[in-house]
Amino acid sequence: MARRFTGDKLVIASHNAGKIRELAALVAPFGVRVVSASELGLIEPEETGITFADNATLKARFGAASAEAPALADDSGLVVPALHGAPGIYSARWAGPDKDFAIAMERIHRELGERDRRAYFVCALALAWPDGHCDVFEGTVHGSLVWPPRGQRGFGYDPMFVADGQQQTFGELDPELKHRISHRADAFNKLITACFA
Amino acid sequence: MARRFTGDKLVIASHNAGKIRELAALVAPFGVRVVSASELGLIEPEETGITFADNATLKARFGAASAEAPALADDSGLVVPALHGAPGIYSARWAGPDKDFAIAMERIHRELGERDRRAYFVCALALAWPDGHCDVFEGTVHGSLVWPPRGQRGFGYDPMFVADGQQQTFGELDPELKHRISHRADAFNKLITACFA
Repeated sequence: MARRFTGDKLVIASHNAGKIRELAALVAPFGVRVVSASELGLIEPEETGITFADNATLKARFGAASAEAPALADDSGLVVPALHGAPGIYSARWAGPDKDFAIAMERIHRELGERDRRAYFVCALALAWPDGHCDVFEGTVHGSLVWPPRGQRGFGYDPMFVADGQQQTFGELDPELKHRISHRADAFNKLITACFA
Repeated sequence: MARRFTGDKLVIASHNAGKIRELAALVAPFGVRVVSASELGLIEPEETGITFADNATLKARFGAASAEAPALADDSGLVVPALHGAPGIYSARWAGPDKDFAIAMERIHRELGERDRRAYFVCALALAWPDGHCDVFEGTVHGSLVWPPRGQRGFGYDPMFVADGQQQTFGELDPELKHRISHRADAFNKLITACFA
């Protein structure tokens, strides 16, 4: 059973400006004051988990313990079953320190060759408390990979991903539509229903 | 089209005594003299690939270029679809420097919880030449994960893996039977057929 959110302050356990903005907007309707790990000067824990849920949990727990307040963290990535799950939890790291996703996409395309191009995005959202309690919610969106990449919107692997039922890649899709069908939206909805609604 | 093996010397691009022994035994019937990367004093390249095939290829290519002779390399691991492919290419690394697979298995068991316990082992074998040509053969064995682990045979995640059609784990199975149905046998057979037979 998930623990309902009761406090008035929530730490966003992230140093990524985009993620902080997105997560803050999500909980804004519930009158929650948001403060980020960056603002608090918290360090980033090493992501040693073997799953998205594991990494989200360790980031949220670390944030909650450090800030002595409930903390929300996100871990997400692209899973290609024909590549035995790659790039998976290493999705961001494969793009290197320069976040060069053009190279990362090229690499996936090359490795895939004639294999099955189905893929899915995963987002794990973890809400942790200073006493160690943590609830995790996992969202997914299934689709397939196209080549060449298309579109300037979104980020990461978006330009090569077409969600089931769509024609456009996540790099081309209207952001509002993307945010309604994405893995992050799926995880968000589960979190909100269980802890905030 | 795979290149047929024509030389008389083959480098086993590994520093793992068990793997060297296993690969040497495989090619012995074809009158090939085998020398290991350890014997040649070659360093181990960093495994920066995103797939088993990628890692096997880079190890084999590195061995072939360094030794100026054809080189054979192996990369293998356990893939759990319900964990989005984890531990995958990080199977060995998750056991830590002490190769503590008891902890790695416990971790997988804990993360799995009530999820689907189906899993498969993958083995990629790469045969590379000094001119850069490389052929890769991938083998798999499908099954499911049990808890608690059973059996003292095998290594790695073997004690928690039961292959489809078997009752015993890879840690309990007669080694001869295991070597006939394993992911490594599957990859071996493909390599032999294409390059040595």
